[in-house]
Amino acid sequence: MPFRINSIKSYFPKKKENLNSLKFKNLNKNKLLKASGINERYVSSKNENVITLSLQSAKKILNAKIKKQLGFLFFVSQTSPYKFPSVSCILQHELDLPGDIFAVDINMGCSGYIYALKLANSFMHNKKKYGLIICSDTYTKYIDKNNRSCKPIFSDASTSTLLEMSKKKFFKSFDFGVNGGGQKDLMLSNNSNNMYMNGAKLAIFTLNVIPDFIKNFIKKNKIKKNKIKFFVLHQASKYVCDNIRKKLNFEKKYFLNNYNKFGNTVSSSIPLLLQEAMNKKKIKKDDTIIACGFGVGLSWGAVEIKW
Amino acid sequence: MPFRINSIKSYFPKKKENLNSLKFKNLNKNKLLKASGINERYVSSKNENVITLSLQSAKKILNAKIKKQLGFLFFVSQTSPYKFPSVSCILQHELDLPGDIFAVDINMGCSGYIYALKLANSFMHNKKKYGLIICSDTYTKYIDKNNRSCKPIFSDASTSTLLEMSKKKFFKSFDFGVNGGGQKDLMLSNNSNNMYMNGAKLAIFTLNVIPDFIKNFIKKNKIKKNKIKFFVLHQASKYVCDNIRKKLNFEKKYFLNNYNKFGNTVSSSIPLLLQEAMNKKKIKKDDTIIACGFGVGLSWGAVEIKW
Repeated sequence: MPFRINSIKSYFPKKKENLNSLKFKNLNKNKLLKASGINERYVSSKNENVITLSLQSAKKILNAKIKKQLGFLFFVSQTSPYKFPSVSCILQHELDLPGDIFAVDINMGCSGYIYALKLANSFMHNKKKYGLIICSDTYTKYIDKNNRSCKPIFSDASTSTLLEMSKKKFFKSFDFGVNGGGQKDLMLSNNSNNMYMNGAKLAIFTLNVIPDFIKNFIKKNKIKKNKIKFFVLHQASKYVCDNIRKKLNFEKKYFLNNYNKFGNTVSSSIPLLLQEAMNKKKIKKDDTIIACGFGVGLSWGAVEIKW
Repeated sequence: MPFRINSIKSYFPKKKENLNSLKFKNLNKNKLLKASGINERYVSSKNENVITLSLQSAKKILNAKIKKQLGFLFFVSQTSPYKFPSVSCILQHELDLPGDIFAVDINMGCSGYIYALKLANSFMHNKKKYGLIICSDTYTKYIDKNNRSCKPIFSDASTSTLLEMSKKKFFKSFDFGVNGGGQKDLMLSNNSNNMYMNGAKLAIFTLNVIPDFIKNFIKKNKIKKNKIKFFVLHQASKYVCDNIRKKLNFEKKYFLNNYNKFGNTVSSSIPLLLQEAMNKKKIKKDDTIIACGFGVGLSWGAVEIKW
């Protein structure tokens, strides 16, 4: 039996930063804002981490009835405070989830939500009605205050997506791509506290690969262009999102955005967009949505949703 | 279409250590050996890591024809040298795998192989014939020479398991369990180079939970006891494996072991046992095998294989 999205909840660290918090030499804030589009970012404090954030987003979505019928927990992150144990196991305990759930950690970044949806949708478990995907990252813990490429971009967040069994096919088609040739363009070693991003190379990759990937995805899955309600792109930056949109040759109204107020929240950017659209009732039954995640790895994936 | 195991290959670091390499004060080597059963362990050097080990085990199993038909790569590990990118993306590049494979990192420990098999077996991909699970860990990099509980036990290894589509159901049934209440019994923080294990608590958990879990698994899935050819248990230590066996009340000949020569290789222990049994033609068509992984998390899982 396939799954559908039942609901999405989110949680952000308490601390918010804006452009004024950037203390780079010779910074042209207007120019930066024009390119990144990012006004505000969330920055986790020392006593916040992916576990504490996840607990908050998950508690908003779980109740006793759902917990009882929960078959799996996929935790998507690259910034656990531990090498082991897996955070999904810790969350099982802290959230008092059943001891027979299938709990795994998936170490993926900006494409991670799409990968988790695919794994969830393929998952045949023992007749449990619900599944949970928690995406949480705290990239800001690994960004030095002088890191000009990363500091203005990345933001911390957690989202919990509750999936439920569905008679109708909700996730209609998936497609995936990977190019480890770009492994060094966005990287964080274990012994480093300052991540590296070659923003220019990442943008070139994205604009070379992702628009064609989405075009082929539409063609391959015979999706009628006039049926597409929204594109839900990973919120890398305004520059990247705008240019993908232009290459796809669709009007602005077909794209949901949140980079302005949330920054680049890695694997949470897509569920955050979906959450807002659901809350504002922008998405209706039978709407066709194309979501696409891309980034670190390099790794990318797309899903066609018939809501 | 479900998957079956086509073949398994492995690779170990160059450096081997035995009991004589342990320099603990007042060490009773005979007593230690009687409990752990571990004579030899593999220890990665500075220029070996989970990526280099994985490349070696994978290269033994891949050829041009298989690569072309490879649909997914699941990389199971807890000891990547990077927080990001995902190692599966790096391996895609280094092994020259197709750019459209579904490549993900799964952060799980001693139970990880069973979890990856379940995800693989549930995986519906675009008609590709093969899938690859690579398990690699280098726990020894995070064990101080004075760490008496971990140093004599853990060992580094990599295994590559090639799965192929199967008309018959090869993985007959799965079951899983998690108890994050034991999260602190085996733990490694990001900012530590010395893992912590409470061996006594882990052993108590294992012997309290795992034998009953396996008994219930046999009962629930109506597996006839006289049809079971082998139990393939995670090789935690001689003490743990012996006591699970006694609680299951099966003779020694029903259990495959490799702790003696390989140590506790985390997620590779089960594929290493299967590899040896296949090589020695101990496993024949239609044999029923029960494999069970358990440990860090705490997390456990079992699979019934009809070979």
